[in-house]
Amino acid sequence: MSVAGKTTLARRTLLVAGVLSWIVGGAAQAQTDPLPSWNDGATKKAIVDFVQATTTQGSSTFVPPAERIATFDQDGTLWVEKPIYTQVVYCLDRVPLVVKARPELANIEPFKTVMSGDRQAIASLSMQDLEKILAVTLTGMPVDTFKAEVAKWLETARDPRWQRPYTELTYLPMQELLKYLRANDFKTYIVTGGGQDFVRVYAERVYGIPPEQVVGTAGATKYAYGEDGKPFLTKEPKLLLNDDKAGKPEGINFMIGRRPVAAFGNSTGDREMLEYTKTAGGARLAMIVLHDDAAREYAYGPAQGLPDSRVGTFTQALYDEARKNAWAVISMKTDWKRIFAWDP
Amino acid sequence: MSVAGKTTLARRTLLVAGVLSWIVGGAAQAQTDPLPSWNDGATKKAIVDFVQATTTQGSSTFVPPAERIATFDQDGTLWVEKPIYTQVVYCLDRVPLVVKARPELANIEPFKTVMSGDRQAIASLSMQDLEKILAVTLTGMPVDTFKAEVAKWLETARDPRWQRPYTELTYLPMQELLKYLRANDFKTYIVTGGGQDFVRVYAERVYGIPPEQVVGTAGATKYAYGEDGKPFLTKEPKLLLNDDKAGKPEGINFMIGRRPVAAFGNSTGDREMLEYTKTAGGARLAMIVLHDDAAREYAYGPAQGLPDSRVGTFTQALYDEARKNAWAVISMKTDWKRIFAWDP
Repeated sequence: MSVAGKTTLARRTLLVAGVLSWIVGGAAQAQTDPLPSWNDGATKKAIVDFVQATTTQGSSTFVPPAERIATFDQDGTLWVEKPIYTQVVYCLDRVPLVVKARPELANIEPFKTVMSGDRQAIASLSMQDLEKILAVTLTGMPVDTFKAEVAKWLETARDPRWQRPYTELTYLPMQELLKYLRANDFKTYIVTGGGQDFVRVYAERVYGIPPEQVVGTAGATKYAYGEDGKPFLTKEPKLLLNDDKAGKPEGINFMIGRRPVAAFGNSTGDREMLEYTKTAGGARLAMIVLHDDAAREYAYGPAQGLPDSRVGTFTQALYDEARKNAWAVISMKTDWKRIFAWDP
Repeated sequence: MSVAGKTTLARRTLLVAGVLSWIVGGAAQAQTDPLPSWNDGATKKAIVDFVQATTTQGSSTFVPPAERIATFDQDGTLWVEKPIYTQVVYCLDRVPLVVKARPELANIEPFKTVMSGDRQAIASLSMQDLEKILAVTLTGMPVDTFKAEVAKWLETARDPRWQRPYTELTYLPMQELLKYLRANDFKTYIVTGGGQDFVRVYAERVYGIPPEQVVGTAGATKYAYGEDGKPFLTKEPKLLLNDDKAGKPEGINFMIGRRPVAAFGNSTGDREMLEYTKTAGGARLAMIVLHDDAAREYAYGPAQGLPDSRVGTFTQALYDEARKNAWAVISMKTDWKRIFAWDP
């Protein structure tokens, strides 16, 4: 074969290889489902359609990458919140240590009840009692000490039902959704009624969300100097941001300064965040998780005849509002193929 | 020439071309100075050494990209703050519009003085008077209305000395520094005593810093509904974060949740931020701008015998502390080749 002939052959081989690679690559891409734990259906389609609408260049619904803000509630949206919020378990577990340091609390309610170990009585504590417990276990210490204590607790604490670390109780479909959005240049935020400092301890490891993208209920800190002359911050019992209900859009404006394009929640505490997101106009995604799967997780509402709940309340009025305003309701039972990464 | 001979020649040509490209590329890279507006010297070297120390894999001073947080004061550090903070000029310019809407203010101080147009009297207003002016011009309106008003004002307002838009009064060497740090995977933040909402209006366009990376003095907002039934946020006259002095590290902890690796300031208001950054240990960079160039910008201190100043006070005690703690003092006169992008 002549040199020219060889060159032509080489070019053709390259061309064929290129076409093959394009075909195989395309097929491989089509086969890679970014949301494998979601059942096919309207809910999954709403997510994929939204991402296509906001990321397709030249589309009227295109959103520039810098404005692609997605906000997620945490408790009941990204991980289990039953029978009680994980942070409250942490606070209850800290009570004996606080009482050891301040013995006068042992005979004062609600600390007396917590020290009694009476699970029924502890579960019945009022919100006011819980707030007293939160105040003494979440404030008064250096920020760094608090973070170290939470990290240590998370290593050994186990949830009562599955006997697993709390950080393993995240929902696999939501983890996939976080990754899918980030792969499409969305910046994912946690916007939680829980403590900002608490969630920041594990959010990066557990959700891939860095501390600066965690917005939560937060108190003031005080800058002062230690005996070594070095400065440190102490957590003060003064509330700065109550990141619940209307506090969520207020917190988003404060901490992010942009209105989200997508928002995800599961309870009345998320109502205003979803509303604030969806009413902005354009392609906007608001989704709300309905816990209707007692077998694989929990079932509570009281929407749709589900049992009432002290935590993560999802009323029928909220359900009706979601339907009316085209917020997608995620049914755990119907929409999620798997709930946890360790599900069989 | 045989086919084999041609192939060998082709390979050698490629090899030579590769080596040439490597040599030329290396030379080109060595010639590309990331900080061309900085004079060579100890200050510039401190920056380059810091970036190398924190970004060299395997080095004991290496900082993972996620932890590369750099915080910048704005007024006097990134742009001109004399004769008075730009935001205060905005507030003074708004007074006639506020008085038009609320005529009863026309005869009440300090509004009466502002309306008189007496520049000397306006310049002598007390901090308490200025706070009254700030309160009525920065709160009480929807967040979106405020942002639109600031954006509109920035288009037409001109500084008295150079007759240029305020957004052109940024320091070129600091703009280069922001870009240099970002090119090395640092996340750059503004941490300003100025209003968070004010700075967020132009920070992305002017500094390449998105709203969520602007930490500033901020008030509460209130979520409510308009006549169209749509929700919106109103700026309330309730201070949440006084982002000055100790408020800077407190604000950094609140908004970012990580201790900075590098921090830049120019006044007593930045002292605690620089201290908080530098005392953490490891390779840390704290720099403070000394305005010692009356010809090209302004000269004020009162450190080093410079004239005293109401804004951007840089005391001799602060200067001594900087020297003692190895905070690099940036001399505008000595360290900066050019000050503004439009300098000849």
